[in-house]
Amino acid sequence: MNLPKLNNFQIDDVIKSALKEDVTSWDISTNAIYDDDKLAKIALISKDNGIISGLDVFKRCFKILDDEIFFVDYKKDGDSIDKGDLVLEIVGRASSILTAERVALNFLQRMSGIASLTKNMIDALDDDNIALVDTRKTTPNLRIFEKYSVRIAGGNNHRYNLSDGIMLKDNHIDAAGSIKRAVSLVREAEPFIKKIEVEVENLDMLREALDSKVDIIMLDNMDIDTIKEAINIIDGRALIECSGNVEIDNISRFKNLKIDFISSGSLTHSAKSLDFSLKNLRYIDEWNSI
Amino acid sequence: MNLPKLNNFQIDDVIKSALKEDVTSWDISTNAIYDDDKLAKIALISKDNGIISGLDVFKRCFKILDDEIFFVDYKKDGDSIDKGDLVLEIVGRASSILTAERVALNFLQRMSGIASLTKNMIDALDDDNIALVDTRKTTPNLRIFEKYSVRIAGGNNHRYNLSDGIMLKDNHIDAAGSIKRAVSLVREAEPFIKKIEVEVENLDMLREALDSKVDIIMLDNMDIDTIKEAINIIDGRALIECSGNVEIDNISRFKNLKIDFISSGSLTHSAKSLDFSLKNLRYIDEWNSI
Amino acid sequence: MNLPKLNNFQIDDVIKSALKEDVTSWDISTNAIYDDDKLAKIALISKDNGIISGLDVFKRCFKILDDEIFFVDYKKDGDSIDKGDLVLEIVGRASSILTAERVALNFLQRMSGIASLTKNMIDALDDDNIALVDTRKTTPNLRIFEKYSVRIAGGNNHRYNLSDGIMLKDNHIDAAGSIKRAVSLVREAEPFIKKIEVEVENLDMLREALDSKVDIIMLDNMDIDTIKEAINIIDGRALIECSGNVEIDNISRFKNLKIDFISSGSLTHSAKSLDFSLKNLRYIDEWNSI
Amino acid sequence: MNLPKLNNFQIDDVIKSALKEDVTSWDISTNAIYDDDKLAKIALISKDNGIISGLDVFKRCFKILDDEIFFVDYKKDGDSIDKGDLVLEIVGRASSILTAERVALNFLQRMSGIASLTKNMIDALDDDNIALVDTRKTTPNLRIFEKYSVRIAGGNNHRYNLSDGIMLKDNHIDAAGSIKRAVSLVREAEPFIKKIEVEVENLDMLREALDSKVDIIMLDNMDIDTIKEAINIIDGRALIECSGNVEIDNISRFKNLKIDFISSGSLTHSAKSLDFSLKNLRYIDEWNSI
Amino acid sequence: MNLPKLNNFQIDDVIKSALKEDVTSWDISTNAIYDDDKLAKIALISKDNGIISGLDVFKRCFKILDDEIFFVDYKKDGDSIDKGDLVLEIVGRASSILTAERVALNFLQRMSGIASLTKNMIDALDDDNIALVDTRKTTPNLRIFEKYSVRIAGGNNHRYNLSDGIMLKDNHIDAAGSIKRAVSLVREAEPFIKKIEVEVENLDMLREALDSKVDIIMLDNMDIDTIKEAINIIDGRALIECSGNVEIDNISRFKNLKIDFISSGSLTHSAKSLDFSLKNLRYIDEWNSI
Amino acid sequence: MNLPKLNNFQIDDVIKSALKEDVTSWDISTNAIYDDDKLAKIALISKDNGIISGLDVFKRCFKILDDEIFFVDYKKDGDSIDKGDLVLEIVGRASSILTAERVALNFLQRMSGIASLTKNMIDALDDDNIALVDTRKTTPNLRIFEKYSVRIAGGNNHRYNLSDGIMLKDNHIDAAGSIKRAVSLVREAEPFIKKIEVEVENLDMLREALDSKVDIIMLDNMDIDTIKEAINIIDGRALIECSGNVEIDNISRFKNLKIDFISSGSLTHSAKSLDFSLKNLRYIDEWNSI
Repeated sequence: MNLPKLNNFQIDDVIKSALKEDVTSWDISTNAIYDDDKLAKIALISKDNGIISGLDVFKRCFKILDDEIFFVDYKKDGDSIDKGDLVLEIVGRASSILTAERVALNFLQRMSGIASLTKNMIDALDDDNIALVDTRKTTPNLRIFEKYSVRIAGGNNHRYNLSDGIMLKDNHIDAAGSIKRAVSLVREAEPFIKKIEVEVENLDMLREALDSKVDIIMLDNMDIDTIKEAINIIDGRALIECSGNVEIDNISRFKNLKIDFISSGSLTHSAKSLDFSLKNLRYIDEWNSI
Repeated sequence: MNLPKLNNFQIDDVIKSALKEDVTSWDISTNAIYDDDKLAKIALISKDNGIISGLDVFKRCFKILDDEIFFVDYKKDGDSIDKGDLVLEIVGRASSILTAERVALNFLQRMSGIASLTKNMIDALDDDNIALVDTRKTTPNLRIFEKYSVRIAGGNNHRYNLSDGIMLKDNHIDAAGSIKRAVSLVREAEPFIKKIEVEVENLDMLREALDSKVDIIMLDNMDIDTIKEAINIIDGRALIECSGNVEIDNISRFKNLKIDFISSGSLTHSAKSLDFSLKNLRYIDEWNSI
Repeated sequence: MNLPKLNNFQIDDVIKSALKEDVTSWDISTNAIYDDDKLAKIALISKDNGIISGLDVFKRCFKILDDEIFFVDYKKDGDSIDKGDLVLEIVGRASSILTAERVALNFLQRMSGIASLTKNMIDALDDDNIALVDTRKTTPNLRIFEKYSVRIAGGNNHRYNLSDGIMLKDNHIDAAGSIKRAVSLVREAEPFIKKIEVEVENLDMLREALDSKVDIIMLDNMDIDTIKEAINIIDGRALIECSGNVEIDNISRFKNLKIDFISSGSLTHSAKSLDFSLKNLRYIDEWNSI
Repeated sequence: MNLPKLNNFQIDDVIKSALKEDVTSWDISTNAIYDDDKLAKIALISKDNGIISGLDVFKRCFKILDDEIFFVDYKKDGDSIDKGDLVLEIVGRASSILTAERVALNFLQRMSGIASLTKNMIDALDDDNIALVDTRKTTPNLRIFEKYSVRIAGGNNHRYNLSDGIMLKDNHIDAAGSIKRAVSLVREAEPFIKKIEVEVENLDMLREALDSKVDIIMLDNMDIDTIKEAINIIDGRALIECSGNVEIDNISRFKNLKIDFISSGSLTHSAKSLDFSLKNLRYIDEWNSI
Repeated sequence: MNLPKLNNFQIDDVIKSALKEDVTSWDISTNAIYDDDKLAKIALISKDNGIISGLDVFKRCFKILDDEIFFVDYKKDGDSIDKGDLVLEIVGRASSILTAERVALNFLQRMSGIASLTKNMIDALDDDNIALVDTRKTTPNLRIFEKYSVRIAGGNNHRYNLSDGIMLKDNHIDAAGSIKRAVSLVREAEPFIKKIEVEVENLDMLREALDSKVDIIMLDNMDIDTIKEAINIIDGRALIECSGNVEIDNISRFKNLKIDFISSGSLTHSAKSLDFSLKNLRYIDEWNSI
Repeated sequence: MNLPKLNNFQIDDVIKSALKEDVTSWDISTNAIYDDDKLAKIALISKDNGIISGLDVFKRCFKILDDEIFFVDYKKDGDSIDKGDLVLEIVGRASSILTAERVALNFLQRMSGIASLTKNMIDALDDDNIALVDTRKTTPNLRIFEKYSVRIAGGNNHRYNLSDGIMLKDNHIDAAGSIKRAVSLVREAEPFIKKIEVEVENLDMLREALDSKVDIIMLDNMDIDTIKEAINIIDGRALIECSGNVEIDNISRFKNLKIDFISSGSLTHSAKSLDFSLKNLRYIDEWNSI
């Protein structure tokens, strides 16, 4: 299966802005010390176990600072890495390497943290028939990096934003007066290319949603017994998503349920960063000795 | 003590961009259902215990979408909150409230997560003579929000970026040939308003740094016995920072050491979000009944 | 049915940029002549028959130039207007009115042109059971204004962009090797919230698409007899869209066919502008005489 | 005669923004199916007769997405094309070609539509002594693309915007009290490098304008007999522009009049798009087989 | 005579960007000390004699930081000021006043420096029949502020940029082969609303320019005797501009020459700043005591 | 000593914006005349004596317009140049050279003017033990270019902005009630990496500042005798900065004083531009004849 791509026109402005955030005037420590006529080589080393995500973004940070920087790849996005692994080598001006280091690592550690948690939750669930999906609980302005990282690790994406998927929640239903009326209103407004999902909190709401012939039902914060009863009631008439405080240490309870999707906000809002560092900077005498 | 401020000219573009990220065309679910002529009221409820940070940012998200939205405050940044607490009430068009909800919460949950972890680590350290400071391991383009949240909870900020503080690390020292030469170079380049900090990994490096009369010494990844020996050697001649994988469950080992600062990247790169939700939307018949 | 909204955070940058396009330094003709201490009133008059769209955008152009401009509304978006109708009155500084005039009209005339053509094509089709939808053949960077105008006139929107709808065309099918494999690949990649649409050029492709259980079938450039045969074959198993050079003078041939949607690129790429002008500027002596 | 150029620093931001408009997250259909390791070739075919404009813009759309895309040119801007003509061939990653296709075509079809209408109106006028010029009735933020297209087809440009040309219209004259006073005010304010044009609606206004020694007179919405009388009165003392609802089917009435310019807003606000499509995508086995 | 206006849509982005330049994170000195609940008042005092320009820009800097800041005006743009004059008073939060102070003054001192030099050069020239005009030798991205300041002091503007005026210089003439051919080419390309100016370095070039019937002739770096001879040759057939190292101490040599314009780059590229300072900050107890 | 670098990610947007300021539509004079198929060569000649600064910025202006422009360098930033010196040669399309000429020169003349004044003031001071530093009185949005130019000529930089240095001035001290309290507040807020500087106007303030153990004392506008007394009082307990209307013709009075720094706003706000011009454009027949 092809994975999504992060195009430069989508990420360059975010990276430039992050570089500007870290270099207001100049990198005063580095500029004082390095000799730009010398070429250097440095290694990116993993300091944790996990799944790597964001290598193209990492490399783009250096390229935007200085396009005469080059890379030797040992890993690619989605690869499993262990503590101590050599991920890639960087060759270029020492000052450029050091100035972009932190910004590049800040992207990589966050994206890899999300990929790693995604992989760990899929492993903890241990059920190939249920897809793990993310939510819109992402870091402001970094959604594309985070949803990319979920997919790179085998997860899938729920709707990208408010404009590309229909989800009727408690407040929508209250405002419309009933599930039936909410579904009718939204079907009239958006008749066409998008499925309709409704969030239900109990079995009465579930039955009303089924009567409205919605495409997807989200069982919100239900206990396992209620979920099983809901599955029976639905009986194949809609796709089923389970949600509500799903975390790494409680996801296994869904194993073997006949549901289609589990969504978890924690994938993007509470993943710990994966640790990396740039090590062993050394000078290379000439460009042609690389 | 006054806390730092987030000025609108610094945050508005970030917020607008986040709103655009979440609303490409329109909020198709909300637009189909809500009646804009009706006014609504909704409550922001805490679903976790912790320290709140980002209320002005949260409110600004709604104001940028629709400037006819108003707030009743029950908490302010830096306050301790418990699960179930009413944080504020929002009054305005129901559709505007629902469309900006997720973006506003995405800022608030992240900022409050950082504030809460900061407060918890300060409590775990339990030593008023040592300041807990953050690092540059922040989310790209959100540094100002994150460093603000560290301070709001009683932490302090290390340098903001590469341009406002001098820090000589292993790679700088290797490039210069020695600590002495590195310090000399940077002192020549930046003679004036900034202190000089050097990262040392062992006691020999420490002695060389002291000979160079640096202002701040960072003891990197040292065990407690070595730190104690370092403190004796330094003997008041420099400020002391300890660093290296400092987390909530290992920070207490520094208690009662005669050091000035502990820095921890985990404050910003690995804080879990604090959970909030908007609840109890109801319509209000007339503006003057608020 | 609620109509979509154009939020200020979505349109302000487009408007500011258009004002900068028209005023590089100053409006040299107007600045030389007008006396800013005088207040003026002017009328927006329709010079064509049609459907009006873009009044909020029109007004926002003036407000961004000068927030002390005010409006008296006589029409609202979606209203039918005739040549000579008074649409609204503007009150404010004469120089601000004249400087923003052309930019404001350039938005209004284009949006109303699209709304008017949409309404005319719906009338020409004369079949309430078939929805008329737009395409992605829109003006670069003005898609939201144009798709809004299609809806305001009773049309509906096809997918907003490449990210919010799945459409498999000839090139996708060729690349995948078959419809079956293309559908299988995309279903694996995007299992969830989006329907799958396939464009077919003949009845063999149609049958293969049906076998793949796609949600929507687009009959591309087929003659009416073939469309009728296709409808029989589909027999309710998928939604049906017809497309291909649909214009105002040939849309009536689809009347009474059992299809769901007709899409037409001409709605947005070839609508003629609707003509408006600002007339009868006169000075008002005092603000309180308005 | 050299034609104007569209520099990359002027168009790149517009193109990037258009790509972002069409790809919020990813091109979900294309990403699921294409194999990026394969190279593809595709042909740009004209589906209408007309004048082509915008080929550099078209190519830049692909280059900004993926700089490893290459082109074989068969036509250049300003060329006459017929239905079925091969315009250019594109070689590059299939996924990049398909993702940028619609954005690139949206620029090309609009620019070529304007160029074609311009050429057709010049042909309909059939008088080499009268120049056909555009107006400021352009698409917001695309003026440079549209005025370029008018010139590429043999038309000329009226003032670019409010800052680079002086035009006194009815509202300016009313505000100043008389043509004489309006001209005097603007001559005082802008004494130097710009000619002064006045719009007149009748022969009395014309005489007053001539008395004020303006450089250009625009005869607004006059019938042919009145225009002839005006020409006699002007008698070479000013350049003459005719304007007012000039369209393809009424422009021939100006033939052989001793006027200098005819301006028509319809060139830019109401041109129909010229139709193009990308056809015959096929894979190429190796880069060196191109 | 009306003066040009600086609209907010033209200046706000420049001001925001300047504020961001001066406040990367927070104003650390001010934030530590001021109490935001207290209201303060401060006076803007002139420390030089000259002409003031930029008061609206100055005030806008504070308003963009904090819209609850208010002003009492004692002077307006174009006024003559003396050392010690009270220019305006500011009332608002002390921290907002101090944080925006430097940015606001940086605009004001530069704009007023240009206005003052302009006035001084006009006085030194002492000839009302010759207009003093600026050039394109302006500060990058501040042209509108600088050309505004020239006008506010009684100067006038030469062309704003490369797009709104035609000027044929030595390199253009060399490339075309002759003045005659250069003028012919540019007249063909831009037949309409713009005058044609040619820069001549000697009397032969002058005669060729006159033969080409150009509108304006610039006598570049000629001595006074040659200028007088040129004036005789031109004999009213073109407007005359003199240029070339015109400065405050040599402009008087042009007095009483029958020329129309003198242009001087020094107005914008070498004006000294006018000095201002904010003095006498004091707290006000309550808002209603202002 | 290494000098600071201006990275492309920091300067490109400023340059693009400056090019857009000078080319709204097209360079109408140049476009009419030049033949783009011809290659040209032109020389950058100094017309003043001084220190050159900004060559990379100068070259970047051309590269952003047209990346097929190349340079032969004869001077580098910081070099002393004399009137008539050849600085560099440019080879590329004649039209690109001419269109970017003014923007490129506007950067270079301003940056070199600042570098030259800095060098002249250092020479006038003639005391290697005192560093000359700049201030925040810079051109809005060009601070990085201007502070770079000060350093390139041997000067040094005071704080870059409000966020990277602590400076307590009269208004801060008034607000806090005393120097002692102001220092205490700011030390509490910013305990760490930044030195504390206090501005004092008399010897009483000086003594209070010393009692507060500040790091740097700025003696503001004191006469030389008072400065000498202050030096005695300070007696090595703080770094000493002198400030207040320091200009080229009065800086020598500080010679041989035991102070550390002299700051002068005039370096950046009142430097005259250094004059350069592009001369001797000639066509080159073929690219390979360069």
